[in-house]
Amino acid sequence: MFAPLTRSVQQLIDATIRTEVDEDTVVEARALIERATELLAAQQISGSFGVQPTTDGGTVAWGNVAIGLRNPVAPPLVLHDDADGSVYTDIDLGAAYEGPPGHVHGGVCALILDHMLGATAHQPGNPAFTGTLTVRYVRPTRLGRIHTEARVERHEGIKTFAVGHIADADGVVTVEAHGVFIRPGAR
Amino acid sequence: MFAPLTRSVQQLIDATIRTEVDEDTVVEARALIERATELLAAQQISGSFGVQPTTDGGTVAWGNVAIGLRNPVAPPLVLHDDADGSVYTDIDLGAAYEGPPGHVHGGVCALILDHMLGATAHQPGNPAFTGTLTVRYVRPTRLGRIHTEARVERHEGIKTFAVGHIADADGVVTVEAHGVFIRPGAR
Repeated sequence: MFAPLTRSVQQLIDATIRTEVDEDTVVEARALIERATELLAAQQISGSFGVQPTTDGGTVAWGNVAIGLRNPVAPPLVLHDDADGSVYTDIDLGAAYEGPPGHVHGGVCALILDHMLGATAHQPGNPAFTGTLTVRYVRPTRLGRIHTEARVERHEGIKTFAVGHIADADGVVTVEAHGVFIRPGAR
Repeated sequence: MFAPLTRSVQQLIDATIRTEVDEDTVVEARALIERATELLAAQQISGSFGVQPTTDGGTVAWGNVAIGLRNPVAPPLVLHDDADGSVYTDIDLGAAYEGPPGHVHGGVCALILDHMLGATAHQPGNPAFTGTLTVRYVRPTRLGRIHTEARVERHEGIKTFAVGHIADADGVVTVEAHGVFIRPGAR
């Protein structure tokens, strides 16, 4: 029930950025939006979403700005795990993620790579915290379909070193990243 | 006319993440949202917002994911220039920017710092492109009010070196960054 709501809000975000309608129509749309907010906010959790338990004993981070199914700001990244421990995903980035005209904001690339590298460094029961993230911009990333992947390069004591990149629809690498993660539980 | 619309959509995003209403109410809210999108999308620019001319001869990047006044994903960063060329801003980051429960996503910190450092490295008529951005996570950043600032450290030929940080409401630095920017027009 929440995924279609999130998708509807994402379409509204896109329309909000791109609309060229007159002021009366904007005012009319805004009244509808405010009524929808009123309906949804009538009963709500007191703070941010956080991590909540599911009925089957798992947990969900549906508010997460990178992967949250209930967060319209999230593309969202739907992570796929490869057998070798690496993660990858293909996503479409529209007008909402723009920096230079027609291109993905460099900061959005950094956000995505931060999450991807963290996801690969993280192990169940042995959480990893980002120490340092270095992002190298090789060439501009056009808005549209992108591919991103990350993997652990090596472990050294409590440190895990991860690498990853973003590639465009033609498979050309546009942004590279490496990160150092700290796993307090490692030895 | 657009700033209030953007603000309304931001409030809807927050409500979408935090709502606990029943399915019937979600369906009702979604119908209102889809009607609003329909109204706004009836007439729209064909691609992303880009950079558009204003009637007074300037330009605006209202779709920009960091600073765009028409982009509900943007906090937005309202940049203030100091006399020494540094930039700073104070913003509130709510549930939409969450990573670890109750805290700002590390990738959002990277996005903000990428934009702040780029803004200070950029000079009118002499654009700077990000080469490398390095982000160091000193401690977690709580959701809520943050302060961020950046400044140019030095120039070396076509390279500009910039530094910046994010501090929490108590003024404690949580994330540091340095970046290397390329200014093709410099010598």
